[in-house]
Amino acid sequence: MSSAQVRPAQSSLSGFPEWLPAGRVVEQAFIDQLRRTFELHGFCGIETRAVEPLAQLTKKGETSKEVYLLSRLQADPRDRDSTDPSKQLGLHFDLTVPFTRYVVDNAGVLTFPFKRYQIQKVWRGERPQEGRFREFYQVDIDVVGDGALPLHYDVEVPLVMSEALAALPIPPVTIHVSNRKVAQGFYQSVGIGEDQLIEVLRVVDKLDKIGAQAVADELVSTVGTTAQQAAAALRLATITGQEPEAVREAVLAALEGAAPHELLLTGLDELTALLDAAHRRRPGAIIADLKIARGLDYYTGTVYESFMAGAEDLGSVCSGGRFDNLATNGKRTFPGVGISIGLSRLLSRVLADGLVEVSRAVPTAVLVAVTDEEHRAASDTVADTLRRRGISADVAPTAAKFGKQIKFADKRGIPFVWFPGADGEGDSVKDIRSGEQSPAEAETWRPADDADLTPQLQPVATAEPDTGGQG
Amino acid sequence: MSSAQVRPAQSSLSGFPEWLPAGRVVEQAFIDQLRRTFELHGFCGIETRAVEPLAQLTKKGETSKEVYLLSRLQADPRDRDSTDPSKQLGLHFDLTVPFTRYVVDNAGVLTFPFKRYQIQKVWRGERPQEGRFREFYQVDIDVVGDGALPLHYDVEVPLVMSEALAALPIPPVTIHVSNRKVAQGFYQSVGIGEDQLIEVLRVVDKLDKIGAQAVADELVSTVGTTAQQAAAALRLATITGQEPEAVREAVLAALEGAAPHELLLTGLDELTALLDAAHRRRPGAIIADLKIARGLDYYTGTVYESFMAGAEDLGSVCSGGRFDNLATNGKRTFPGVGISIGLSRLLSRVLADGLVEVSRAVPTAVLVAVTDEEHRAASDTVADTLRRRGISADVAPTAAKFGKQIKFADKRGIPFVWFPGADGEGDSVKDIRSGEQSPAEAETWRPADDADLTPQLQPVATAEPDTGGQG
Repeated sequence: MSSAQVRPAQSSLSGFPEWLPAGRVVEQAFIDQLRRTFELHGFCGIETRAVEPLAQLTKKGETSKEVYLLSRLQADPRDRDSTDPSKQLGLHFDLTVPFTRYVVDNAGVLTFPFKRYQIQKVWRGERPQEGRFREFYQVDIDVVGDGALPLHYDVEVPLVMSEALAALPIPPVTIHVSNRKVAQGFYQSVGIGEDQLIEVLRVVDKLDKIGAQAVADELVSTVGTTAQQAAAALRLATITGQEPEAVREAVLAALEGAAPHELLLTGLDELTALLDAAHRRRPGAIIADLKIARGLDYYTGTVYESFMAGAEDLGSVCSGGRFDNLATNGKRTFPGVGISIGLSRLLSRVLADGLVEVSRAVPTAVLVAVTDEEHRAASDTVADTLRRRGISADVAPTAAKFGKQIKFADKRGIPFVWFPGADGEGDSVKDIRSGEQSPAEAETWRPADDADLTPQLQPVATAEPDTGGQG
Repeated sequence: MSSAQVRPAQSSLSGFPEWLPAGRVVEQAFIDQLRRTFELHGFCGIETRAVEPLAQLTKKGETSKEVYLLSRLQADPRDRDSTDPSKQLGLHFDLTVPFTRYVVDNAGVLTFPFKRYQIQKVWRGERPQEGRFREFYQVDIDVVGDGALPLHYDVEVPLVMSEALAALPIPPVTIHVSNRKVAQGFYQSVGIGEDQLIEVLRVVDKLDKIGAQAVADELVSTVGTTAQQAAAALRLATITGQEPEAVREAVLAALEGAAPHELLLTGLDELTALLDAAHRRRPGAIIADLKIARGLDYYTGTVYESFMAGAEDLGSVCSGGRFDNLATNGKRTFPGVGISIGLSRLLSRVLADGLVEVSRAVPTAVLVAVTDEEHRAASDTVADTLRRRGISADVAPTAAKFGKQIKFADKRGIPFVWFPGADGEGDSVKDIRSGEQSPAEAETWRPADDADLTPQLQPVATAEPDTGGQG
């Protein structure tokens, strides 16, 4: 008996992953552990419907191509061909858009700041040939205020996520932070025009993909900065560090004499306050990384990306930031800060690389053998007694030879086989891993090791060299 | 401070229910409890993708009108207008169709009998004006064999579901069973032709809706039975009971002298074996009810429906049966037996009728007050210490006056407010329900009652008269 096979199920539709039972044990354990951490920090769980009106989904034009539209197979033809986006429904492609709508819908009854987590599948109508997931789990936490939201939530959100990820049996994840105000204030300090800021952010965001020279070229040729401005933007983008004052000084030094814009100083105050609190509460969890820009998104201050050790090629495994103006109902504005894991993508990598093992694919701790079909009721009684005591038990499907029943347990990774006593003899239980068999009573028996009660996840040591943990 | 408000969230789309945090606490607690029971009985959890090819979904023509089709908003026009059902994708409308496909896809690696539970949302493209749910949770358990599946699983499946439902804070649910072989064998015994059997089942299935006289009329006028045959079918349909031999005798007596067909005797052996085992393991949980027919479905033997005390008008809250021929891959056949709860419908009723209360809508047990923003770090340390010890804690959003911070906790139902000590004084914690305040240390404090650690569900006594539990 070895640990259960963790691999994807056969699925004839590309982009719609499914797991065999062992993989699902891992996925469920990840979800349960994430939930546990979020709840310890006072986050409420909510779920939103899977569909939103198309108009809601396409508010930001960038994502419209990813939407799956719905139509009723036997609908009225007028409905079906409707192109009125307020009537058409689509599947949500993230959890931020529906959460924002939920907050506005229920603003009158929710209590703010509202801390919520949300773990649901999302769908993206990607082109099949790109080999991306078209259905996957996202795991989001957000804190939303009514009118205002204190800066300390910009610290709380990544620290909670860091704690949640650290509790999973995966390689360490480091959260990289920057601040839009630092970047934009820095650019303005070196004379980049307000109309160019978003474009500069968009180009700098490609640094890891296309390299420094290509970024500099594009800044000059496409965005229209000077070569000196492009060089300054690249100096900023190379700054990383955990020590607040060192980061502040490095950013100011990168100005090379230009006077710091007020927005830059505000941003640096926010960023250093975050680093300071993060360093105190979870040393090493968070690092400033001034190249993080989060493209064209709606972020207004702090931004997050996160990288798993040994899987940097996977890109950011969890991302987010502060959005001061995301939700509004006309009268009230709801600023928020949040972070989101692409769980299916993370899990898929963890399992494909064999980084996690699971002790068995079934919840069952004990298989109760059946002596013969006439005595099945005795086996049922044993199993029911164990279950009442919180021990997962199954009864053999047929009264086959005991050797075959033991094989049934072994094939599934069930550690114990229970033999009901016959003719006045007592029951006994066998640990089929060690072969050890001992007398037992269903009312009192427990496995020596509580870990045998449920499937256990184990991180698998990889061949990666130990880097000594300095960083 | 009273218990949290359990009511639906505002949702602008009819048929797509959403819950406020308190309602979600109840839904999540139901799901967790159901999972716990299923896992104690050795059922594996799986999830399948939300979509299936249209051809898979419409194999049984009856349900085709309920399918939501998907199309990519910006797909190639040829794809979008495709009417090839093997290319088109739709959302699953139940969990049986995708589970069957999953079993066939993975038959080479699954171990049989395969016991699985599955808790997922399903979608039905109902006409909006019908006011039905178009998105809802289904909760299924099934056992599937490879080639053969012993009859004892027909007992196990409803008993597990009965145990799972009994662990929820809802009125008692009784599972009603019948057997297709009993009904069909009985009809054949009184001379109803084989070609009429399915039609007779379909008409008898309407008994509760249209009444005995209308059923008799329809059997004679539409199906073409004799008046005597219709009367016999109605005699069978009125039989209920828990005592195996009494049920057998009542069925045979209802033949009024006709010779019992072999299929009837086989069916009675199956039904009485089920009643016998059920009576032994969970007295009162299961009752024979010979009018249960399950319409035109694919069932081949045992069938189940279930009714919640005081909510019989809701119809069956969980249904299923044995299907000997549901799944096949050409070479192998996979017989199964299963039962499914429409969880959202059940929950919606339970909450609408106020049958369950929840002690609070947030996971938080302790709100740590903040003396002033300069000392927020001290409050963070208290909260982190409590969390490490498994106690959910939140820190006040602002250093408002303590009265306002206590109000913040009260509004959310958080039972304890923690005051960090200032100037060498120790910390103290206040139970804001009793007003009692005592010194406390974050490293050692626990609430006197562990029930305060998490939101608690409580069944609410209704005004229904106590019927004495006889049934």
